[in-house]
Amino acid sequence: MKKHNFNAGPSILPQEVLLKASEAVMDYNNSGLSVIEISHRSKDFVEIMEKARALALELLGLEGKGYKALFLQGGASTQFLMVALNLLEKRAGYLNSGTWADKAIKEARIYDDIYEVASSKNANYNYIPKGYDIPSDYDYFHFTTNNTIFGTQMKSFPKCDIPMVCDMSSDIFSRAIDYSQFDLIYAGAQKNLGAAGTTLVVIKEDILGKVSRKIPSMMDYKMHISKGSMFNTPPVFAVYTSMLTLEWLKNLGGIEAIEKENEKKARLMYSEIDLNPLFKGFATKEDRSNMNATFTLENENLKETFEAMLKEGGINGINGHRSVGGYRASMYNALPLDSVKALVEIMSELESKA
Amino acid sequence: MKKHNFNAGPSILPQEVLLKASEAVMDYNNSGLSVIEISHRSKDFVEIMEKARALALELLGLEGKGYKALFLQGGASTQFLMVALNLLEKRAGYLNSGTWADKAIKEARIYDDIYEVASSKNANYNYIPKGYDIPSDYDYFHFTTNNTIFGTQMKSFPKCDIPMVCDMSSDIFSRAIDYSQFDLIYAGAQKNLGAAGTTLVVIKEDILGKVSRKIPSMMDYKMHISKGSMFNTPPVFAVYTSMLTLEWLKNLGGIEAIEKENEKKARLMYSEIDLNPLFKGFATKEDRSNMNATFTLENENLKETFEAMLKEGGINGINGHRSVGGYRASMYNALPLDSVKALVEIMSELESKA
Repeated sequence: MKKHNFNAGPSILPQEVLLKASEAVMDYNNSGLSVIEISHRSKDFVEIMEKARALALELLGLEGKGYKALFLQGGASTQFLMVALNLLEKRAGYLNSGTWADKAIKEARIYDDIYEVASSKNANYNYIPKGYDIPSDYDYFHFTTNNTIFGTQMKSFPKCDIPMVCDMSSDIFSRAIDYSQFDLIYAGAQKNLGAAGTTLVVIKEDILGKVSRKIPSMMDYKMHISKGSMFNTPPVFAVYTSMLTLEWLKNLGGIEAIEKENEKKARLMYSEIDLNPLFKGFATKEDRSNMNATFTLENENLKETFEAMLKEGGINGINGHRSVGGYRASMYNALPLDSVKALVEIMSELESKA
Repeated sequence: MKKHNFNAGPSILPQEVLLKASEAVMDYNNSGLSVIEISHRSKDFVEIMEKARALALELLGLEGKGYKALFLQGGASTQFLMVALNLLEKRAGYLNSGTWADKAIKEARIYDDIYEVASSKNANYNYIPKGYDIPSDYDYFHFTTNNTIFGTQMKSFPKCDIPMVCDMSSDIFSRAIDYSQFDLIYAGAQKNLGAAGTTLVVIKEDILGKVSRKIPSMMDYKMHISKGSMFNTPPVFAVYTSMLTLEWLKNLGGIEAIEKENEKKARLMYSEIDLNPLFKGFATKEDRSNMNATFTLENENLKETFEAMLKEGGINGINGHRSVGGYRASMYNALPLDSVKALVEIMSELESKA
């Protein structure tokens, strides 16, 4: 039986992506070779890489606006480091809205002093800080658009004159916003994009080349741009699945179309959390994430019954992160509305039983 | 028709690995979920990672000898940087035996002065330098065991008292040597190991912790060791295919068994190159690689005929690298002897035609 996959990441991918990827592992396009045993310099693979890069810019509405898309390795954690190495000369401002934002700050501090413009750490990150100032003489402002662990999401973004750099790992391609307000966006593939092992970096080229330090080649955005994201052997399978997922999204109608689906799923989920007296949402209402809903059982005695029902219903991956406890339903682009319906039904069944 | 796959990397993988990987992309172990859509913290994936790490040490004969195996991201190019960051305090010695060795030197020079103990660069790297001294007060000695581009391979290794660090990307697991003479071995997966996107690092723990610089988390071997190679989301599919390939190798009889096969393939290939007057080997005979045979056509007029025959015979990926020209037959572990036979037959057919 196919499960309802609420995993936080690596997470659900569209069935047609899995099918095409599975076939390509045996034989890519009737070439007699697997997609993972061809040269990354071959026409076939160069096409995959170029298509993935172009689709990323197209779907984000960033074509012809001075941006480049890269598929790198090392996850968002490596971007914490690369952002600082490529952009940090004197001082940068960071918004501390969750565990990953906090880790980004820690890594950047190796290179310079970092200013936390605001933090919700003392409230266990259950809200998104607002109303802070961003000094206009800083090198850049860094923030996390969606906090997977805590289930919070930025609904609006500050205006500022310095480069805006964001970790969009868990909500990229999920909502129609003006992506050109950001100068550097990075996102690990394993949520809305593809198999774990590649990180999409979308970067406005004119923010580069302004620091004085010598940057190691693998850490240098300019180097990767100059080599068309093929400075060294790319993670071919992760790039291929990303390309397939971007194609799937485009055929579906792009970000506007998926946003409507994501809103339906989130509305259904949160209304159950709010109306069912057995459950309580973790995140402040106005900051609730459309990607990750975090909630707890009010009565811990029901835990065993609830979890048995979840298992019975094929609900997978909704255990909460240890920092929050309870449950987390991740509702990424590829999760069907029916999976949320199945979960909500079980929650409501628990209410009628209790 | 399945091709004879002589690609230099990404390159051929065992058919049973491709089959299992393809199935797991649709459904891993009848779990109802794909191997690329389960949490890396799940029991299923932790088992894959731990098995891959254990098999790597077991096959290299390094179990219980103070080594740890890691599956990282970023390719050997990132190791050029990590080696320097983790081990370089004052000065290190590098053997310059090829393009990749040269790049490793360039990256390490960002952090300190590097001493080239010897170089074959002036001879377009057609041999392995020998008879050099390695100063015993250096931090480490770095070398490349096999030079994919030029088709040379180190047949013996110098003795020295300082840590020996090597890039073994293109010949790891291919021959029975005493791996415990090395202190740090790294290898991109895409030749003898698995899908591109992960790099195996095997490291003797006691050489770490001796530099004074602060090392960024993602660049820190100690950090990755302390997290069991899961500091952040690993490249799940590349690790899974590596685990499958290591299992395949173990079932085959391990490195001793595959070495015999590799010797047969190389003997057949080189005897054709030497006996067929139409072809000429590029690398100095005593340094010839058992993994990559480089050769040229003596008479360029035969190029078109030869390449049409190769295409007709399903021979894929034997174009030489631009630095050498001509041809390169990569004969990694997974390449069957029959593929070499097919290639050699065409070369000999060309001779009878010419």
